[in-house]
Amino acid sequence: MNPHSVSVAQEPSSRIHFNEVVTRDGFQNESVFIETDDKVALIDALSACGYAKIEVTSFTSAKAIPMLRDAEAVMHRIRRVAGVEYSVLVPNVRGAERALECRPDELNLVMSCSESHNLANLRMARHQSLQTLLDVVRHVQQAKPLHPVAVNVSLSCVFGCPIEGAVPLSVVQQLVQTFVDAGVRGITLCDTTGMAHPAQVQQVCDWALQAHPQMQWTLHFHNTRGMGLANVLAAVQSGVRRFDGSLGGLGGCPYAPGATGNICSEDALHMLQAMGFDTGVSLPLLLPLARALPDLVGHALSGQVAKAGVTEDLHPMPCQP
Amino acid sequence: MNPHSVSVAQEPSSRIHFNEVVTRDGFQNESVFIETDDKVALIDALSACGYAKIEVTSFTSAKAIPMLRDAEAVMHRIRRVAGVEYSVLVPNVRGAERALECRPDELNLVMSCSESHNLANLRMARHQSLQTLLDVVRHVQQAKPLHPVAVNVSLSCVFGCPIEGAVPLSVVQQLVQTFVDAGVRGITLCDTTGMAHPAQVQQVCDWALQAHPQMQWTLHFHNTRGMGLANVLAAVQSGVRRFDGSLGGLGGCPYAPGATGNICSEDALHMLQAMGFDTGVSLPLLLPLARALPDLVGHALSGQVAKAGVTEDLHPMPCQP
Repeated sequence: MNPHSVSVAQEPSSRIHFNEVVTRDGFQNESVFIETDDKVALIDALSACGYAKIEVTSFTSAKAIPMLRDAEAVMHRIRRVAGVEYSVLVPNVRGAERALECRPDELNLVMSCSESHNLANLRMARHQSLQTLLDVVRHVQQAKPLHPVAVNVSLSCVFGCPIEGAVPLSVVQQLVQTFVDAGVRGITLCDTTGMAHPAQVQQVCDWALQAHPQMQWTLHFHNTRGMGLANVLAAVQSGVRRFDGSLGGLGGCPYAPGATGNICSEDALHMLQAMGFDTGVSLPLLLPLARALPDLVGHALSGQVAKAGVTEDLHPMPCQP
Repeated sequence: MNPHSVSVAQEPSSRIHFNEVVTRDGFQNESVFIETDDKVALIDALSACGYAKIEVTSFTSAKAIPMLRDAEAVMHRIRRVAGVEYSVLVPNVRGAERALECRPDELNLVMSCSESHNLANLRMARHQSLQTLLDVVRHVQQAKPLHPVAVNVSLSCVFGCPIEGAVPLSVVQQLVQTFVDAGVRGITLCDTTGMAHPAQVQQVCDWALQAHPQMQWTLHFHNTRGMGLANVLAAVQSGVRRFDGSLGGLGGCPYAPGATGNICSEDALHMLQAMGFDTGVSLPLLLPLARALPDLVGHALSGQVAKAGVTEDLHPMPCQP
C-alpha cells in the first residue's frame, strides 16, 4: 500500500465499476479475425480478474463487422461468473432479438451526438438512430425476457466530433433527456476520438451527475492525444465511478492513424488502485493477459504498466560499471 | 477555442512556465551521438516556440555522459532569445566553473531523495551529494558572475524509488529545508521513474506550496505507467505552474525497458492550453519539431499529439463504401 494514498477505501464511493471492452471495441477494429476459441478463453480469463462488466461482442451484421461474426458462439460458450455483467452491443431490434436469445445482462446501444459522425459511423441521420434505439428500448421492455436485461446507451462524440469540431453540451443534454425519459438504466458518455480535456470532462460530469443522479453514468475515454488518464482523474473527481477501458489500450481511431485508441484498462485500474479506489480487479491476474495480447492480435500495444510493471515492482541495485 | 474551456485565461495564475529538457534529459539517454549542429538547430528552434526555459545541456564529464560532451560548443553557439532562460545541469564546483564561463541563466543541480538511487545514479551517498551541491550554491553566491545566474535543485525519486520503494515525505521535506536555507531560487520535485499517482502528487504539492510559498517549484513527471498527464493535472490543481517536459517524450528509464520516460512536452502543453492555461508556447511551431525528432534520434517516440494532431484539426467526411 502506498503511504501517500488518499484514504478513500472505507467510503462507499471508493468503489469503481470497470467495464472491459477489449473483445468488442478492441477486436472489432482488428484486421485479422481472432478465433472464437481465443475470444472465449480471453473473456473467461477476464471474468476471473474481477471486472464489474465485460462488453463481450456485438450483434451487428457479419458484413458490417466481420471480426465479430461469431457473436452467438462466443456468448453461448463463455463461462459466466457471478458478479460480472455480460453486455453486448446491438444496433437495432433485429440485433436485440438475436442478442436476447443469448441471455446477456445488458444491451448496449450506440449513437452519436454529432450528425456528421453518426452519418459516417452508422450511415443514418441522428433522428433515424434515435428512433431505432428507442424501438430497441421498447422491444426489451415489452419482451420481458426471463433473464433480466438492462439497457445502456453509449453516446459518441460527447466531447467533440472529428468532422464537425465542437459539440454543444445542449445537444448532449437533449439526447440524455430522451433516453432518461425512455427508462434506460445507464448512459455512457464517450470521447470517441480523444478530443476531451479535463476541464471539459469536469464540466460535463458535474452536469450529468447533478441533473440525473439516479442514472448509471459511465465514462468512455480515448487516449488519442495522451489525455486519457487525466480525463479519468477529472471524471473521478466529479464523482463518476464507472469507466470503460480496453486491455492493452487496444482499439484504434480511424481519424488518427498511428495514434492510440481506448484508454488502457490496466493503466487506468493501476492508477485508480494506487489512489486508494477499490476496483475489484486483480492486477496480478490481469497483467499476464495484457502481456499476452500483442501475440494474439499480432502487433504492439500502447499500455504502459504491462511493460513497466506496477509501482510496487522494485528493481535490484544496478551493477557499478 | 474550445467552448468547454475553463475560463482561467484572465487570472494571473493561468500562466504556465514550461521547461524543455529534451536536449539534456532526452539526448543524454540516446545511444547515438547527436551532432552539435543538430543540437544547436533544435535549441534555436525551441527558443522560437516560446518556452519559459530550456535545459540546454550538462557540464558533467565527457566520460560520464558522452552524448553531452559538446556542452561548451552548444552553449556558445545557440542564439539566445529574450524571455527564454537557458539552464544547464552541473554536478559539482568543477562543472559549475565550466558552466559559468558559458553564461547560463540557471544552474540545475541534482541529487536523489533515495540513498540507493543516489548511489546507483550518482555513485555517492546522499550526504556526499548534499555537500557537493551546497558547495556549488556557495560557489555561485561568492563568484558573483557578471551574468546573473540562478540555482535550481532537482530532487530525484520524490515520489518513490525503483530500488527501495516508498520514500517518506519527511526525507523530501528535510532536503527541501536544507536547500531553502541555502538560498536556492527553485526546487524541482522529480518523479524519476514514473511512480507517482495523482493523490500523492496533490499531497506533496499542497505541502510544498504551503510550506514554502516563495520557492520556485517545478514538477518533473515521467509517463512510465501512463499517469504522466494525470499527475500534471493533479499538480496544476494544487497550484503548481512550472513543469519539465521532453519533446516527443524522449528520455528513457533504465529500470523499465520499453516503457516511456519523461512526459511529452507537446502533449502536456496541448492539454494545458485546451484547459485555458497560457503556456506561451506555440504548438504550430512546436509540432513540426516533434514530428522531425524520430528521424533525428533514429527511433519512434511516444508522443500522441504529434501523431493525432491537435483537437482542433478536423477531418473530412469519410467516403461511404
